Amino acid sequence: LTVSPQPSSALDAALIEIERSLGPSQVATDDEIRQRYGHDESEAVPHAPDAVVFPATARDVVEVMRVATRRLIPVTPRGGGTGRVGGSVPVAGGIVLSLERMQRTKAIERNDSIAVVEPGVVTGELHRQVEAEGLFYPPDPNSAATCQIGGNIAENAGGPRAFRYGVTRDYVLGLQVVTAEGSLLKLGKRTFKGVTGYDLTSLIVGSEGTLAVVTEATLKLIPKPEAVATLLAFLPDVRSIERATIAASTGGVVPRCVELLDREALTIARENALTPLDDGRAHAMLLIELDGDAAALARQVERCGNALTQAGALKVVSASDPVERERLWETRREMSRALRARARHKLAEDVVVPLSRIADLIDACQTIAQACGLRAAAHGHAGDGNLHVNFLWDRDDQTAQAQRAVRKLFEAVIAMGGTLSGEHGIGILKAPYLGLEQSDELIAVQRRIKRLFDPYAILNPGKIFG
Amino acid sequence: LTVSPQPSSALDAALIEIERSLGPSQVATDDEIRQRYGHDESEAVPHAPDAVVFPATARDVVEVMRVATRRLIPVTPRGGGTGRVGGSVPVAGGIVLSLERMQRTKAIERNDSIAVVEPGVVTGELHRQVEAEGLFYPPDPNSAATCQIGGNIAENAGGPRAFRYGVTRDYVLGLQVVTAEGSLLKLGKRTFKGVTGYDLTSLIVGSEGTLAVVTEATLKLIPKPEAVATLLAFLPDVRSIERATIAASTGGVVPRCVELLDREALTIARENALTPLDDGRAHAMLLIELDGDAAALARQVERCGNALTQAGALKVVSASDPVERERLWETRREMSRALRARARHKLAEDVVVPLSRIADLIDACQTIAQACGLRAAAHGHAGDGNLHVNFLWDRDDQTAQAQRAVRKLFEAVIAMGGTLSGEHGIGILKAPYLGLEQSDELIAVQRRIKRLFDPYAILNPGKIFG
Repeated sequence: LTVSPQPSSALDAALIEIERSLGPSQVATDDEIRQRYGHDESEAVPHAPDAVVFPATARDVVEVMRVATRRLIPVTPRGGGTGRVGGSVPVAGGIVLSLERMQRTKAIERNDSIAVVEPGVVTGELHRQVEAEGLFYPPDPNSAATCQIGGNIAENAGGPRAFRYGVTRDYVLGLQVVTAEGSLLKLGKRTFKGVTGYDLTSLIVGSEGTLAVVTEATLKLIPKPEAVATLLAFLPDVRSIERATIAASTGGVVPRCVELLDREALTIARENALTPLDDGRAHAMLLIELDGDAAALARQVERCGNALTQAGALKVVSASDPVERERLWETRREMSRALRARARHKLAEDVVVPLSRIADLIDACQTIAQACGLRAAAHGHAGDGNLHVNFLWDRDDQTAQAQRAVRKLFEAVIAMGGTLSGEHGIGILKAPYLGLEQSDELIAVQRRIKRLFDPYAILNPGKIFG
Repeated sequence: LTVSPQPSSALDAALIEIERSLGPSQVATDDEIRQRYGHDESEAVPHAPDAVVFPATARDVVEVMRVATRRLIPVTPRGGGTGRVGGSVPVAGGIVLSLERMQRTKAIERNDSIAVVEPGVVTGELHRQVEAEGLFYPPDPNSAATCQIGGNIAENAGGPRAFRYGVTRDYVLGLQVVTAEGSLLKLGKRTFKGVTGYDLTSLIVGSEGTLAVVTEATLKLIPKPEAVATLLAFLPDVRSIERATIAASTGGVVPRCVELLDREALTIARENALTPLDDGRAHAMLLIELDGDAAALARQVERCGNALTQAGALKVVSASDPVERERLWETRREMSRALRARARHKLAEDVVVPLSRIADLIDACQTIAQACGLRAAAHGHAGDGNLHVNFLWDRDDQTAQAQRAVRKLFEAVIAMGGTLSGEHGIGILKAPYLGLEQSDELIAVQRRIKRLFDPYAILNPGKIFG
C-alpha cells in the first residue's frame, strides 16, 4: 500500500478537525514554520510539510492519528530534527508531528532507578536531571544538547559511551505508543527484567517512526559513576588500533569510550589545536575514557596507559580533572565541524565493521576516495567498530563520484561482515542500499510488520524501505 | 487459526517424509523417548509428542518445517528441557523438535569478542569455552549445567549476573532462524552496534519458540573480569533489603549479583548449613557479588561491606577465594532443592516488582499464603526485583488453594507495577494470567505478529496466549 498525494480537500478537512480538537495554537501552516520542519541535519533534500502539528498530550496524538487514518494523510513524527539520514523529512508531505511540547520528565524514581519521560525531553537535559539525583543515563549522542529522547528511541541512538554501556534500546524498559490508527498501547515494563509476551518495546525502538508514535518512555538508569578519567593514545599505524582497543580493557574493565581519529582526521585536529597534540608521527589517535570508583580509577588509568604503551602507543596522556578532560575531548568533539570547514562538500556515513576489520575499513576508505577523486577522513566509536566516514570534495560536479564512493564503501563494509548504520538509521538516504545488507525475504518480513502496524502506510512514509 | 488434532495419516506421511530426508536415526517414535520429551521441569502436565525429531543442521530444520506446514503438524522446539512454565511441553502433540544435536560452537572470535553457536550448545559449556579465551558470556540461568543456548534465547533467560550485565537479549547480536513455513532467515548483525531495519532479533528472543526456530546465534562477549568477590549480608528486617541493595552499589560500581533469601528461606538455609550462618536474628540475607580489576576489588569489597553495615546489616562476611566463595553460594544455590524437601507440594513463581516494592512483595507473599492455608518462601534476584516465590503445602486437596494464592500473588504484583515473569516466560502455566498484565488490544497485536510469522499456528501451539 502506498499513499497517493492527498487531495487538498482531505488535508484541509483533516487540519480543521485537528485544529478544532487540539486548539489553533497547536497547528501551524505558515510558510516559515513549514520550511523549518522540512529538513533534518543530513544532506537529504528538504521537503516542507503541509502542516506542523504540536501535540501537548498523548490524547492529542491519538486524535491526530485517528484523523490522519480516516483521511489518509501522511504523518511524519519529529524529535529534535538532528537526524543524519532524512528520517524526519516529510517526503510525502502531509503533517509533521513535532513532539517538542511533550517535554515533561514525569518522574525520576531514585530507588527504582527509572525515569518516566515524554518524548520531547532533550537528552542533555535528562542527563542533568538524573545526574542531580546521583543516577546516570548512558546514551550520549553527539547532538545531546538539542536532540530529544523520542528521536533517540526512533533511531536507537548510540554515542561514545555505548562501548561500555550499550545503546538507547538497552535503556528503554517500557513505552506508551500511539498506533497509526490511533490506539494507545502500553508496551513493556517498569522493572529491569520482564519477559511477559513479545518484546514490542525493542521492536519500536529503532523503527524510525514508521510503526508507532512514542508518547512516553520508561527508562532504566544506573548509578552515576563516581569518577571519570580520559586518556589520549597516539598510535604509529592503523594496524595498532585493534591491538590498542583490546589492550584498553585491562583487567576485564571495559572503558566507557574508545574513540578514534584516523590519520586525516588527526592531521586536521593538529592544525586546529591551540597547543601541540603530538610530534606529528602518529597515524591515529584513540580517546579512551574510564569511569568508576575514584580510588580504583587512578590505578586503572595507570594500568590502561601501560597497556596502551605496550600495544605500541607513541605517547599517552591522561586527565581526570573536568576542565582538562574537556580539553582532551575537544579535538574529537569538534571533528565533524572541522571537517565541514575543510571542503565545500562533505558526505558522512555511519558504518560498522567487526573490530578486527577496522584497519581494513580505514584503508578501504582511502582507496575508495582516491579512486573517486575525493578525500576521506574517518572518526568515531572505534571500540564498537562504528566509524563515521567522511568523503570530502570541492567541485559541485563531483557529486556523482561521491555517490559512487558511498556505494563502494557500503559494499566493502558488508563484505567485511559489517552493517550500513551503527546509530543513524536508514531513513531515506540509506534506503536504496538496504538490499546490500538484507535479503529480499527479510525485507519482505519487515514490510509485513510495517503493514501490520500501519495498514494505510501513513506513518513516516518512504523511510527504511524506500 | 488453530490446528485441529492432526489425522494420523497426515502425521504418518509427514514422519515418512522427514525420515526419508533426515535419515532414520533422527526420528524417534518409541514410547520411552516420546515420554522423555513430553515434560519440562515445571508442574505443567506432561504430554508425550507423537514423534521426536533430532535435526543435525539448519537444512534439516527447514525440511521439518516445510513438511510440517504442508501437513499441518504441530512442532514444539525444545532445548535442554529445563523450562519452568511448560514452554516445551507439546500440548497439541505432533513433533518435538529437539535441537540438542546442533551443539557446535562454530567460532569464538577473540578480537571481535563474539561467539557463533548452534542452539544445542549447553550454556555452562559455552561459559567454559569463552572463559578459556579470556572472554565472558554473562547470562547464567541456574540450570546452566544442562540448559541450552537455544532455550535461553527462546525464554530470554536471566540469572544472578543479570543485575549488572543484563539478560540473554542483551548478548544476542544476530540469529539464523527457520520460519514456520521453512524459510531460512539471517537476522541482526555480527557487530556490537547496528540499526539497519527493524530489530527482529530482539523480537525472536523471548518469543518462546512460537515465532521461529533458532538454528544459529551470534553472541556478544565481554572481557572476563579479572577477579570476583562474594559477600553475605544478614539484615534485621525486610525493609532494609531495598536500602542494602542500593548501598551495595557504592561509588557507582554495580555488583554483578544481589541475591536474596527471605526469612523463611533463610530459616531453612540455617537448618541445612554445616557451619552456623549467623546468630539467628536476621530476617533476610543478601548475597552480593562484585567483579573487576583484582586490586580495585579488595578496596571495593571493603567499601561495599561498610556501606551494607551502614544500611543496617547485622553481619557481613566476604570471600574472594573460589572455594570459600562457592561455600557462600551454596545456601543460595541449593534453595530450590531445599524448599522442595520441605513440603510434598511446591509451586514456584517468578515475579518482578520495582525495588521499592520488594518488602511489600515479601509481606504480600506471607499474607496470601496464610489466607490460603499454605506456607511461602521467597528467594532470587533482589537487585532486579525478581523473586522466585514458592508456595508450599502438604495435603493433596490444597491444590485449589495454591491456585488461588498464585492468582492473588499475580494481582498483587501487577498492582505494585510489576510483571508476571522475570526470566521463566509465560508458556502454558502463566498463559491464563496474561490478561492481568496486558490489555486485550496489546494481546491482539501480539497475536497478529504470531499469525504473520506462523500463519497455520503450527509452531509451539498453546503457548503464551493459551
